[in-house]
Amino acid sequence: MATSPPIKFGILGCADIARKVSRAINLSPNSTLYAVGSRSHEKAARFAEQNGFPESAKVYGSYDAVLDDPDVDAVYIPLPTSLHIKWAVLAAQKKKHLLLEKPVALNVAELDEILAACESSGVQIMDATMWMHNPRTAKMKEFLSDASLFGELKSVHSCFTFAAKEDFLENDIRVKPDLDALGALGDVGWYCIRSILWAADFQLPKSVLALPGTVFHKAAGVILACSASLQWEDGKTATFHCSFLANLTMDVTAVGTNGTLHFNDFVIPFEEKKASFSTAVKSGFTELVTGWDPKPSQHTVMTELPQEALMVKEFSRLVGSIKFGGAKPENKWPTLSRKTQLVLDAVKVSIERGYELVEVTS
Amino acid sequence: MATSPPIKFGILGCADIARKVSRAINLSPNSTLYAVGSRSHEKAARFAEQNGFPESAKVYGSYDAVLDDPDVDAVYIPLPTSLHIKWAVLAAQKKKHLLLEKPVALNVAELDEILAACESSGVQIMDATMWMHNPRTAKMKEFLSDASLFGELKSVHSCFTFAAKEDFLENDIRVKPDLDALGALGDVGWYCIRSILWAADFQLPKSVLALPGTVFHKAAGVILACSASLQWEDGKTATFHCSFLANLTMDVTAVGTNGTLHFNDFVIPFEEKKASFSTAVKSGFTELVTGWDPKPSQHTVMTELPQEALMVKEFSRLVGSIKFGGAKPENKWPTLSRKTQLVLDAVKVSIERGYELVEVTS
Repeated sequence: MATSPPIKFGILGCADIARKVSRAINLSPNSTLYAVGSRSHEKAARFAEQNGFPESAKVYGSYDAVLDDPDVDAVYIPLPTSLHIKWAVLAAQKKKHLLLEKPVALNVAELDEILAACESSGVQIMDATMWMHNPRTAKMKEFLSDASLFGELKSVHSCFTFAAKEDFLENDIRVKPDLDALGALGDVGWYCIRSILWAADFQLPKSVLALPGTVFHKAAGVILACSASLQWEDGKTATFHCSFLANLTMDVTAVGTNGTLHFNDFVIPFEEKKASFSTAVKSGFTELVTGWDPKPSQHTVMTELPQEALMVKEFSRLVGSIKFGGAKPENKWPTLSRKTQLVLDAVKVSIERGYELVEVTS
Repeated sequence: MATSPPIKFGILGCADIARKVSRAINLSPNSTLYAVGSRSHEKAARFAEQNGFPESAKVYGSYDAVLDDPDVDAVYIPLPTSLHIKWAVLAAQKKKHLLLEKPVALNVAELDEILAACESSGVQIMDATMWMHNPRTAKMKEFLSDASLFGELKSVHSCFTFAAKEDFLENDIRVKPDLDALGALGDVGWYCIRSILWAADFQLPKSVLALPGTVFHKAAGVILACSASLQWEDGKTATFHCSFLANLTMDVTAVGTNGTLHFNDFVIPFEEKKASFSTAVKSGFTELVTGWDPKPSQHTVMTELPQEALMVKEFSRLVGSIKFGGAKPENKWPTLSRKTQLVLDAVKVSIERGYELVEVTS
């Protein structure tokens, strides 16, 4: 089979995270950095120069120009969340495939508009939740899916916090209600919710209860820290905590009837080329309960490409199948985005209603 | 200074856990196994024979006989929780110092009767929460107390689950409402609550909210699994999950403004003579956020004596100070028991009220 030409990426804006994704597009074998657009042409030019764009790359002084370039196959959109609806819909209408930063939208109604535009144009959409693409994630899923090792999932806990600097808390878009109105819930909470859904095989919970203690930005009002609990029909439960106000922590623990999974660097692995996790199966005690037998065991998964490059590679593979192979967009990815957003919306509503239990309806 | 004679222990009943504590009494240098009483003399005799009691040990066919033996300094009470009030009060009235299994009582009102009896008799009381005495616990406390390393505590999560066998779920005293009416909340939840209070420097939360999803024993009605969240005046929060229905898991994670503490074997360390924990300080990312810098670090603490022997040693030291040195009972231990029980009671009330927020008042 002849190799298809690489998928040509345009990037909308010069967000910090776009530097990492530009490198990933370069590292992925089936994609290429083709264009970047910013409201400032100068900024776009500097970004292209500093982030490994080829000499031939197009540098545009607007987002529209990127979307109007007929050679751009796909766009990566790292814009503030409130701008997603406008630019994602427009990009889809211009037949650009979409790699969209999380949180994908301010709420599921906006996301549904984006998804409708994608469906109508036949373009692929994927959110940029990178850790989903780390080979460790698939390896851990094997463990969770093995009834004899893990059994039935009973509870999950996820925690993603980082200690934002004063400058962040004053100036970052993630504390600006007109840009990223979802604050810490949208930024770090998104990952917690995704990890819980991932462990639960993407079965939606029946209800969500935010937990008392949400911290709001004094001036801006956005969420700086919050927690929630989730309940499923079959009795399993989950909790998460997300915050801009505490030391960097990234935990997921899933406990099943037979086994336990721990990993403490779920969003960004401690190291780029290898990632570990711990499993325990039918854990018990020594005689007289003076120690564990068996003990948990550690597993390490190597990866040649960093997880964000694997994300770009999978996205580009899907885009290539559509562009060169006449395939349909893969529905898995927008489905996961939507489920994550649905739960996120429910947490927000629960907070707004003073910690009422909120039913999750798809 | 001359060495005081060892503290003479009497044990009430032949519970499974009493085997481990008998060994601990033997291992501790300042205590000795002196008597055991059971409703069956034969059972007591067999217990003494199988658990390292000296030839000279007294074997009694009742609990009363142990309490009536004037040479017994202290009793260890591993009886079902509902019997604590009767036997702990009686023991205190007979001037026996009390090492009392957890949960210490069915509720704080009962505990207060026990504590009043202890105070009136001038005897020491300590609950048998063994992990408090592991040298790892003190080492971790140093970390949590160091403002530059850990900073201000923001959140704690604790999880203690184990997969009870069918026989346990049918016959163990911990699922019998007339014996251990608190079920999993009293058994494993006790430890979760203690660990959270420990991380919070034993500051009581202002409120407690049990989380939807409590699992009750179908026939007996006792709690088999539950979760709760705790809120403090200063904004910190905690969650815990406890269960008889999932693989053995024992996590504590405490996140501060500067640091993070993890340990995954908090109640029973994986190994008897060494115990580990992980700390992270001012965690951050590498350039381009492709890994962590600095990464968390592992610490191991060795112990000559197992934690339960250190518990017996500390208890016996306090008893010896009273008996031979004219000291007063150490108030720290009953205070910790009472705070743990107060929070436990609040969780129970929250469940009973259909997951209402419950204020914690001391």
